[in-house]
Amino acid sequence: MMEHIGLEQVLPTEIEARSFEIITEELGSTPLVPGTEPIVKRCIHTSADFDYAHSLVFSDGVVERALAALRQGAAIVTDTEMGRAGINKKRLADYGGEVHCFMADEDVALAAERNGTTRAAASMDKAAALEKKVIFAVGNAPTALVRIYELVREGVLNPEAVIAVPVGFVNVVRAKELILELKETPSIVAKGRKGGSNIAACICNALLYMLGERRQ
Amino acid sequence: MMEHIGLEQVLPTEIEARSFEIITEELGSTPLVPGTEPIVKRCIHTSADFDYAHSLVFSDGVVERALAALRQGAAIVTDTEMGRAGINKKRLADYGGEVHCFMADEDVALAAERNGTTRAAASMDKAAALEKKVIFAVGNAPTALVRIYELVREGVLNPEAVIAVPVGFVNVVRAKELILELKETPSIVAKGRKGGSNIAACICNALLYMLGERRQ
Repeated sequence: MMEHIGLEQVLPTEIEARSFEIITEELGSTPLVPGTEPIVKRCIHTSADFDYAHSLVFSDGVVERALAALRQGAAIVTDTEMGRAGINKKRLADYGGEVHCFMADEDVALAAERNGTTRAAASMDKAAALEKKVIFAVGNAPTALVRIYELVREGVLNPEAVIAVPVGFVNVVRAKELILELKETPSIVAKGRKGGSNIAACICNALLYMLGERRQ
Repeated sequence: MMEHIGLEQVLPTEIEARSFEIITEELGSTPLVPGTEPIVKRCIHTSADFDYAHSLVFSDGVVERALAALRQGAAIVTDTEMGRAGINKKRLADYGGEVHCFMADEDVALAAERNGTTRAAASMDKAAALEKKVIFAVGNAPTALVRIYELVREGVLNPEAVIAVPVGFVNVVRAKELILELKETPSIVAKGRKGGSNIAACICNALLYMLGERRQ
């Protein structure tokens, strides 16, 4: 039906697989860290931006640690509703996990005002009080990363993993470097200015889909 | 407090303005279509990707048409929950508008199955039945654009504007070209593979913020 308008004939269910084939072809011999390929490729799939083949930095063992945490029902904490919307919550729930975004919470707004911080920073304090394993997925606010850095340094927070991929022009590059300086904290960092809530969500989904494949 | 860790001292309320200053500086003398600057810059702000200075195509008068429609309470229809999450719904509601995403609706799933289409295509049929002005904001599914193209050609749909910015590798480039071929339909198109639900949402927000400035 659509042939006359020049569209490739691909079944809806096969579009993602075909996209990943194209990405793999175009990556060619670009070196990727073994075990991180599904994550890097999904970031490219989400953005059509091959910069992620070079900008993503994985701490040693972060993928295994994050997968183990998700398998045990770890929660994911995001810094935007958009990030929460993008995460496959059904798949996460299969393992007992859920996604939290505290940005719109009344107590977070009050704490931010009281302490003269951003709501993003205050929402990380709230996350630090959760009594369960937590993976942070930060796609927007560098101040969220700065607060995670401070809480880890203070010994108050011990995240299973920090996905540090905010996008932007003010303090974003430096905030990501701070996470890289936490040598004991597993992290996935998009170096430079690029990233976003969509990238944060797609990294979470890549991990969830890796778990699904290993279960089969 | 944060000086020792090398962060720029910018008040939370000033970060966005500072970011736009940096973007404006770095754009330098890159030519932008007059009247579209706030939209192009917000896409760069959302992605840290200066490609949008070159890839965004605006049909004649689309910005004025979209602003007028929003002012009159037009609805926005997205093809993802993530796009819906990113749109400033409070600002939209100030003018009487709301955001719809029909992707998860039972009747859309059934129609897609019955007709052998994607849910994205079926959700555009549902949107076409809305009895109000509609702006489409498509950040994910090329099949949504193809269906919009068909409905416009059939005379069934007359959108106030089509924001055509899906991201991807299969039929994305061609689906955007189809929208450009609709000479009577106001459109904002991100040519090429890049785009996304975040870009779709940020273009809607740029329009809403432009309205706010004009009201003051």
